[in-house]
Amino acid sequence: MVNADRILAPQLRSKVMTAADAAAQIPSGAHVGMSGFTGAGYPKLLPLALAERINAHHARGQKFKVSVWTGASTAPELDGALAKVDGIEMRLPYQSDPTCRKRINAGRMEYIDIHLSHVAQHAWFGFLGKLDIAVVEVAGIREDGSLIPSSSIGNNKTWLDLADKVILEVNAWQDIRLEGMHDVYYGTQLPPNRKPIPIVASGDRIGEQYLRCDPAKVVAIVETNLPDRNSAFSPPDETSQAIAGHILDFLGHEVKKGRLPHNLLPLQSGVGNVANAVMSGLEDGPFDNLTAYTEVLQDGMLHLLRKGKLSHASATALSLSPEGYDEFLRNLDFYRERIVLRQQEISNHPEVIRRLGVIAMNGMIEADIYGNVNSTHVMGTSIMNGIGGSGDFARNSYLSFFMTPSAAKGGKISCIVPMTSHVDHTEHDVQVIVTEQGLADLRGLSPKQRAKVIIENCAHPTFRPALKEYFKRALEYSPGLHTPHILDEALTFLPNWMANKAAREAWRDDAVVQADAWR
Amino acid sequence: MVNADRILAPQLRSKVMTAADAAAQIPSGAHVGMSGFTGAGYPKLLPLALAERINAHHARGQKFKVSVWTGASTAPELDGALAKVDGIEMRLPYQSDPTCRKRINAGRMEYIDIHLSHVAQHAWFGFLGKLDIAVVEVAGIREDGSLIPSSSIGNNKTWLDLADKVILEVNAWQDIRLEGMHDVYYGTQLPPNRKPIPIVASGDRIGEQYLRCDPAKVVAIVETNLPDRNSAFSPPDETSQAIAGHILDFLGHEVKKGRLPHNLLPLQSGVGNVANAVMSGLEDGPFDNLTAYTEVLQDGMLHLLRKGKLSHASATALSLSPEGYDEFLRNLDFYRERIVLRQQEISNHPEVIRRLGVIAMNGMIEADIYGNVNSTHVMGTSIMNGIGGSGDFARNSYLSFFMTPSAAKGGKISCIVPMTSHVDHTEHDVQVIVTEQGLADLRGLSPKQRAKVIIENCAHPTFRPALKEYFKRALEYSPGLHTPHILDEALTFLPNWMANKAAREAWRDDAVVQADAWR
Repeated sequence: MVNADRILAPQLRSKVMTAADAAAQIPSGAHVGMSGFTGAGYPKLLPLALAERINAHHARGQKFKVSVWTGASTAPELDGALAKVDGIEMRLPYQSDPTCRKRINAGRMEYIDIHLSHVAQHAWFGFLGKLDIAVVEVAGIREDGSLIPSSSIGNNKTWLDLADKVILEVNAWQDIRLEGMHDVYYGTQLPPNRKPIPIVASGDRIGEQYLRCDPAKVVAIVETNLPDRNSAFSPPDETSQAIAGHILDFLGHEVKKGRLPHNLLPLQSGVGNVANAVMSGLEDGPFDNLTAYTEVLQDGMLHLLRKGKLSHASATALSLSPEGYDEFLRNLDFYRERIVLRQQEISNHPEVIRRLGVIAMNGMIEADIYGNVNSTHVMGTSIMNGIGGSGDFARNSYLSFFMTPSAAKGGKISCIVPMTSHVDHTEHDVQVIVTEQGLADLRGLSPKQRAKVIIENCAHPTFRPALKEYFKRALEYSPGLHTPHILDEALTFLPNWMANKAAREAWRDDAVVQADAWR
Repeated sequence: MVNADRILAPQLRSKVMTAADAAAQIPSGAHVGMSGFTGAGYPKLLPLALAERINAHHARGQKFKVSVWTGASTAPELDGALAKVDGIEMRLPYQSDPTCRKRINAGRMEYIDIHLSHVAQHAWFGFLGKLDIAVVEVAGIREDGSLIPSSSIGNNKTWLDLADKVILEVNAWQDIRLEGMHDVYYGTQLPPNRKPIPIVASGDRIGEQYLRCDPAKVVAIVETNLPDRNSAFSPPDETSQAIAGHILDFLGHEVKKGRLPHNLLPLQSGVGNVANAVMSGLEDGPFDNLTAYTEVLQDGMLHLLRKGKLSHASATALSLSPEGYDEFLRNLDFYRERIVLRQQEISNHPEVIRRLGVIAMNGMIEADIYGNVNSTHVMGTSIMNGIGGSGDFARNSYLSFFMTPSAAKGGKISCIVPMTSHVDHTEHDVQVIVTEQGLADLRGLSPKQRAKVIIENCAHPTFRPALKEYFKRALEYSPGLHTPHILDEALTFLPNWMANKAAREAWRDDAVVQADAWR
């Protein structure tokens, strides 16, 4: 049954079919560009049907894999389902699915971790090969065949432009009143024909409200009525609140020193608990007329908009909790005037980020004592999620914060280390490091000066003595004293120190017991 | 004696004095912004006089140090002289002086290695502290007090704008016909008031020919007549020619595939032997109507301009050999129409580099098998020079090449390693790695796929077996298989393998000798 309210283009109604029939149009080996960014606006039935198709082929002993390009992370119905049937040859860019992660780290699936702002242009440049099929969720199809985007835009414009064939999912769950919230810029070009991106304030609209789509390329339309991933919002814990507190104090200090305007500069905020805590701190903070130029709009920014603290926000995706989404729907007309959703090559564009002077706040896995940041790898070898847009924002921002609790795994692992075993953000790109212990302002400091403030201000007390010992030993034994290191120990010093510490303590306890026995 | 031809502003002639008198105006602890970029346009007498002043203080047991901010590298008369008397508290950004390097690596001098495009804005933001004094070489002073820049612009605009006091060196050696070659852009702003930088082609002029300078801030003028560093040009060796050959083949292949226009895209080329070889290869190559958007214009590009292969070039400095400079002078009117010199925040601006789609070619110290690049550190601890503009160009370019001979120190050290001990360019920013052995095209490859092509195509045969062995062992023992590593061995595998190899060979030779003895 065709939903005529959502599919206004009469010539496209005949393309409505089941997800299974649509999936049958995707051959093994295809490069498939799917919609989806941080669990928003991803196709919800087609990937499941494709997974079944793949599974059926595998059951018959036939090879069947596709390459999956997206905006960023999706959901179990997409990444999870396709990874479970071993159906992904190559995945790019950002992903956060546990099944994908497991396959990637088991060496059974290839993954390319690309700056989010690079993806569209690398596809256009032809660096990633030919895009065969676009699979894009939309809120509706207009009479002229143009598309009303759903809760994220991501790389949809690029996939629709580049693919030979297009499969659309029209999701009736997506509120049709999203219409008008999007801004799709069609002024991008290939070099040497590029022009300036004409955004000078985060709320500027420079494009069209709809995605263009050649109706002749549409080979299938699948109707759905299914919610986005919409993960629950967990209130900030004590650690996150402490990190947020340090950042807010610092921003206040910078305003006082005249290095930031009273309404700060456009905020970019990564996803997660710490980011939420910062937003929640801003709710009661002294800053008004804030703006945001970010990737993902979460509950925290929604609250700031509602309270009037945030004037407007630019993003490429809405990633709300179920309660956040309810609030969004209740006041959609209010939010539509204050939120603009853009394609990710614009939301993450270095040119715009640098021009606006964004304040970038991103999480990380660990930092080393010289300010190099690892955002992606566990023990240097296993991918956690990916770099996402953190590099686009960090290097081009006015101020770049990287945040983490000082210790992970119940306090067993230090998030400040002598040398990170993987570097995603170099010493040249990191200005402020924050843990619940404190904040290290690295601006204008040489590597050795950085080490002192990072160890003193950010390291967890359990590991601070070890880091001091490493730094002291490095100052003594390092061949060069610009960035003192002992290469034999740099990557393994902390675990060894902890093991020795336990051994030392056991020995000491033992010694006490024996001393007692002799008494 | 005042050179009235060079100092047209009558009110400034009274400020002419000896370098010693001028240097007396610089107190200990001052932040001094000096001109100079790749040995061009640096002040030539003042720093020597300042070094004497510092030395005299030290002889009297008085502390005297200054912080020195420049465009990039200067010359022995500036960095060398000040470092020799232990007169530099903090140096930023890029430097390449042997005495500085020694002091920094001995832990006796602080050094901050900043992206060249970041320096001006960080100074404006107030992140580096207050700039007290600007010391800028110019070719002349005009009647209205504005300045004719000399052979580089670098950060001069920013230093002149920000400093409380200005000391000018008017260098009669700099040809006055440089007038009109410069383009100084006064449209930069602090966020939130920034506008697009209106460059859409590398030759575009968007600013003024002169540097503005408030005459009231000028506290001293020193007259000089001394040449720039102008290092000799060494013709490309065999290794460099091989690297250049791989790059030219690759560019030809990309044109054939339709991924590059016939006249390529604006070229950026780092400094040195390999860069020269590429330029020299382009002289006889199939590409016409080339353009350049780069930092430093060297002999190679001069020849390309002269031959008509290169239509025009944008840079922030001229760094020519003595012969190159002679040729430049002979045809200055020809070159003035084809060369534009800009301030380095524009020559290295991410916005412009990305818009133009620059082809970036930069040297490196080493790369690892996953495509992380170390451009700055020897053995992870000693600084070589600095990151310079390589990060500005690499991340924002259309295509990013990193080049090095496959082995250094007479073949004793591999420039392809299991894991770089310092990362300046992450796996996310490196697309093509080239050595004389061959070229690794990393586009669209996952880390493990990258490792195979890098080892196979780029490693020196002496080290290829070791790298293969490491990769094989990593595939077997790595806890995660996204970026397989053995952390215990990653940083020391190669030297150990080489030592063991020697031991193995010694043992084998020994065994042969003994076997012979038994015969």
